[in-house]
Amino acid sequence: MFNKEIETKAKIHELIAGRWSGRAYDADKIVSREQIISILEAARWAPSCYGDQPWRFLVFDKSTNQIAWDKAFECLAAGNQSWAKHAPVLLLACADSILSKTGDANRWGQYDTGAASENLCLQAAALGLMTHQMGGFDANKTRKIFEIPDQYMPMAMITIGYQLPESKIEGDMKEREYTSRSRNDLSENFFEGHWQVPIKI
Amino acid sequence: MFNKEIETKAKIHELIAGRWSGRAYDADKIVSREQIISILEAARWAPSCYGDQPWRFLVFDKSTNQIAWDKAFECLAAGNQSWAKHAPVLLLACADSILSKTGDANRWGQYDTGAASENLCLQAAALGLMTHQMGGFDANKTRKIFEIPDQYMPMAMITIGYQLPESKIEGDMKEREYTSRSRNDLSENFFEGHWQVPIKI
Repeated sequence: MFNKEIETKAKIHELIAGRWSGRAYDADKIVSREQIISILEAARWAPSCYGDQPWRFLVFDKSTNQIAWDKAFECLAAGNQSWAKHAPVLLLACADSILSKTGDANRWGQYDTGAASENLCLQAAALGLMTHQMGGFDANKTRKIFEIPDQYMPMAMITIGYQLPESKIEGDMKEREYTSRSRNDLSENFFEGHWQVPIKI
Repeated sequence: MFNKEIETKAKIHELIAGRWSGRAYDADKIVSREQIISILEAARWAPSCYGDQPWRFLVFDKSTNQIAWDKAFECLAAGNQSWAKHAPVLLLACADSILSKTGDANRWGQYDTGAASENLCLQAAALGLMTHQMGGFDANKTRKIFEIPDQYMPMAMITIGYQLPESKIEGDMKEREYTSRSRNDLSENFFEGHWQVPIKI
């Protein structure tokens, strides 16, 4: 995927700086099984509270199981389907709400699953692949179709694949894909020693 | 921090593979302001649902504000205090439960905050620093002391600092610090097209 500049007050690692959520997937280039396993291994080695590993990921690989991919695709919101249709791999990230070792509620289930998903997206970027996480999908429908037990919460659908060559990105997609990346100022989300006190730079 | 081998079915990026949660901090080596800002910038550039950036981080830097650091330290569980006492920087990660743009509930607040924290830990690793996230702290106490509004959930305290030189890691700490890293088999957490169907490798 192509590089989009970001503004930072201190340098950050290129792997973290370079990841962004594109939409222009190349339907003609598959993601190899080795790449998929590499991406999952990155999620597997994320940290978690008590080492409980509350994440569960369902993989939908169009090149090996079109039927499952179609079922996952049908759970996406229409706005996401419009571009996700070209992504060769879809993932569904689910979070366990119960600690496996004690049976107690796990209040870090979603937090830790978010960490695993981020590792996964960064590893994809390291392989030259693009990811895009989506909240816009029918969680209850995924629950029913894929028989996800009540204790697990479907959190995000994730597209994975290669980005289209820049010369082939056209129309509305081009405008969206080239939009600048932006974030809040550091002072809005990062505090110094007390709530709402802006971090000193 | 020193390297601890991990077992993977496919190669992953060294930044992701190399991060682990150590406990043997070097109390004599401070984390510079530039390093802190770099670490926070990595969190800032994490992805989030609707770009809402639901994370808030409180920074407790012993070298510039010992009083605030002490207050944060007092919120840790005793077991964590025993080793976290040597960490020069503590962070508190909080998750917004409300979407800032609409005022609706944000069901991805904790998930996205987990992603930001993972970016932060990876950036620390890129700088040669060690992090350790802890669920073991008194969330209500942090709420009271730092005046955290109800809509934000204190999720994790995080230590940051340099690891002690290996020659100085002694006793029980040595045993803990050298314990092998482990995870579930891929098949336990990663499924192929349907719940509980093990991923094909």
